[in-house]
Parts: sequence; structure tokens; C-alpha cells
Amino acid sequence: MNLFFQPGISQGIHHLDREESHHAIRVLRMSEGQQLHLTDGLGTFYVARITKPDPKKCEFEITENKLAKPKKFHIHIAIAPTKNADRIEWFVEKATEIGVDQISFMLCKNSERKVINHERIEKVAISAMKQSQQAWLPKIRKMTPFKEVMSFSANQKMIAYVDSSNPKHLHSVAKPEKRYLVLIGPEGDFAKEELELALQNGFEKVSLGQNRLRTETAGLASCHILNLINR
Amino acid sequence: MNLFFQPGISQGIHHLDREESHHAIRVLRMSEGQQLHLTDGLGTFYVARITKPDPKKCEFEITENKLAKPKKFHIHIAIAPTKNADRIEWFVEKATEIGVDQISFMLCKNSERKVINHERIEKVAISAMKQSQQAWLPKIRKMTPFKEVMSFSANQKMIAYVDSSNPKHLHSVAKPEKRYLVLIGPEGDFAKEELELALQNGFEKVSLGQNRLRTETAGLASCHILNLINR
Repeated sequence: MNLFFQPGISQGIHHLDREESHHAIRVLRMSEGQQLHLTDGLGTFYVARITKPDPKKCEFEITENKLAKPKKFHIHIAIAPTKNADRIEWFVEKATEIGVDQISFMLCKNSERKVINHERIEKVAISAMKQSQQAWLPKIRKMTPFKEVMSFSANQKMIAYVDSSNPKHLHSVAKPEKRYLVLIGPEGDFAKEELELALQNGFEKVSLGQNRLRTETAGLASCHILNLINR
Repeated sequence: MNLFFQPGISQGIHHLDREESHHAIRVLRMSEGQQLHLTDGLGTFYVARITKPDPKKCEFEITENKLAKPKKFHIHIAIAPTKNADRIEWFVEKATEIGVDQISFMLCKNSERKVINHERIEKVAISAMKQSQQAWLPKIRKMTPFKEVMSFSANQKMIAYVDSSNPKHLHSVAKPEKRYLVLIGPEGDFAKEELELALQNGFEKVSLGQNRLRTETAGLASCHILNLINR
């Protein structure tokens, strides 16, 4: 089944945007009266009927809507983008498939990348949401300096950082049904002063296991663990 | 720390192969008497001293060796390679980082890809092992028809397959300290007859959660879950 993404349906937008219209009418050759499956990315699935198969602006009328299973937890991963842009996009795709609510890109002292292509990353998230048949589009935040990330709200704040103090594994630290915020550092890891600032701001050090994971792998592993403890 | 890979050290091979020699001497500009950290990919780390800094055949003498922490479990993922070769390589890289002992590529009825570049995939695994500072190189098996996979030995055999019978989640089905074999199907999923054959051969159906995951994501998720229940 093809799932289409159309924001603003509940605000009365009853047509597909240009790209999705093209995909439905030109690529999939859909025609008037055919059934469309849609989501607004905000937790609702819709079934609609095509009323005007315009490849630039395909109009439809809603015949059904169904709320996705409500989430009892919220996963926010703040991650320092990797030097290699593919690895960030890979992380966004996989985290979206596995389930993530918010991704923030964090500017750290040791960040090798200071800019991201936000529009491109949004597209990756949208296509991963559609591919995995979900009704929730993760919120992707622009680059945020580490200091500002300290003030993000959550009721379980953790920083992935392994040192001589051997922190506990995220799998045993995280409690079910919380709003989580997990910080994932850059290739060069967090600077000591960033770690201290995080600890002062109520973040708990967590480990993701014995192996040294790349930034994007650590981000995905965190996401997966938080989904597992909430299943 | 740079970790070098050199097979056969315990059989008396005390030089780096061409690629690693080039990396040590030409790229990292290492010289006689300098310390090398190595692994044989079979669970041993070595410390050595460079005796002949030849960029084609760098010779060394072992000064220390240390066995990696022995593994009490064994993860074997048999996966149908994806149409897009990057996704297979991505899976191999990430599974190696997270921890996997054996990867088999499986030829299924609905497989979209019937050949893999074994040499290239081996390289991906080696560099992921080195990057994540591990002493275990996963064994990568060539393409194997689904029927032959049925006879692979393991003491917990599972097939990732979700249907109306709502199988239990891998996280609750898998028991610690076993030899696991998990089958991950192709984009078009397993054929009904493949599923039946697997069930006849003692495989248990498992779920990886509610979201529809891509083949490579399902493979990595399985690997990660099996590592988590054994930590």
C-alpha cells in the first residue's frame, strides 16, 4: 500500500502537493474515484477518493480517518551531525523507521560539521515515515548550539558518554513512558566542559554498550533501546 | 588509536598485508620501532613493534597479546540482500559495529538481488571491526539458497515474519547465551512456502515491533536486540 503525506488535512487542505500529485497521477497512474491512503504526519491516517486527478494538484475527498495508536512516550535525540552527510541522512531514515519524535542537530565544540541541509533531511524523514507506514513525522530541528540544548525540556535527560566512571547502560537507566532527551556527541566526542555543563543541567551519563559506536550508530541504538523498553 | 587487521598472526605471519602496510607507513607515516595495535579478527588483540617499515610489507614483532572478552553467545543473521547494494553494505557495517558473529546472504523466492560483491562486503566488515575496536571479524557467507539455510545449526532459530498470528517480539522470545539464527526476508517478504518450510525446521516466528522495517533495518534491529539481552 502506498501511503501519501499531506500536511494540513484537518485544516481543510484536500489536495496533494505537487510532488505527491505527480507521484500519484504520473507515476502510479491513479485516476478519478480511486482510493488514496494518506497521513498528515500528526498521528492521523486518512482514506480518500480522488476527485480531480491533476498531476500538479490532485484533489480528493476524505472518506475515513483513523487516529494512530497514541504514544505514551516521546523520544528526542539531539545529535552532532557527522562530517559525512550521508551518515546523518542514514540516521534520520533509520530512526524514523524505528520510531523517533524529535531530532535536533547539535553544534558541539568538536563538531566537524556546522551546517546541515534541512530541506533534504526533512525529505528523508518524510519518505521513511511513508515507507514504514507511520502517521507520525518526526520534528527535525535546525542546528542548535550545545548550550541551548541544555534548556530543552524532557523528564529523562541522558548523555551518551563513557569514561572511567563506567556509566550504566541506557537500557537499564531509561524508565518507560517518559519524555526522553538523549545527547549523542560528534566524532571527536563531547568536550569535558560540555559533559560538565550537561551534568550540571540534570543529564545522566549513559553507556550504549562495550563497542565504540559511530555517532549515527549510537543515535540509532538509543532510539531503538527507548522503543524497546516502551513496547 | 588505530587498530590494524592482520590474519594469521598466531600462525607466524608477522607482517602487515599490502593495504595495511601502505596505511601504516605511507598514510600514518609510522617508522621503525613504533608501536602497532593489531587484531587477527579471531578474538585476540596484539601489541607489536615495527621492525621493517616497508610500505608494501611492514614487518613487526609481537610484544604483547590479549584475548578479547570471550563471547557467551553467537549471533548469525541470514538475510536476503536488498536490491540496492548500499543498503547491504550499510547493514554489514552497522551489524559489525553493534556485534554480529556470522552473516549469511540468503537467496529467497522473492529476492530482488541474486549476487553480492563478497570481497567488497568483507572489506566493509573489516573496516567496521577496526573502527569499533573489536577483535572479532564476522564470518560473511556467500549467497545460500533458502533451503540450505534451513540446515544451519543454532540452538535458537527464529524467522522475522509478522502475520495475523501476531508473533511475540524477538526481545521476549530470545533467551540469553544461545547460538541464534535469525532469518530476515527480502523486500517482497518470505513466500508462504518458505515460512512453512522454516516452521517445519524448528524456526519460531518473531516480530521486531509495530513498524514496517526495511530489510536492512530489520537485520540490524535483530542484531541489536540479541546483544542487548546478552549484556
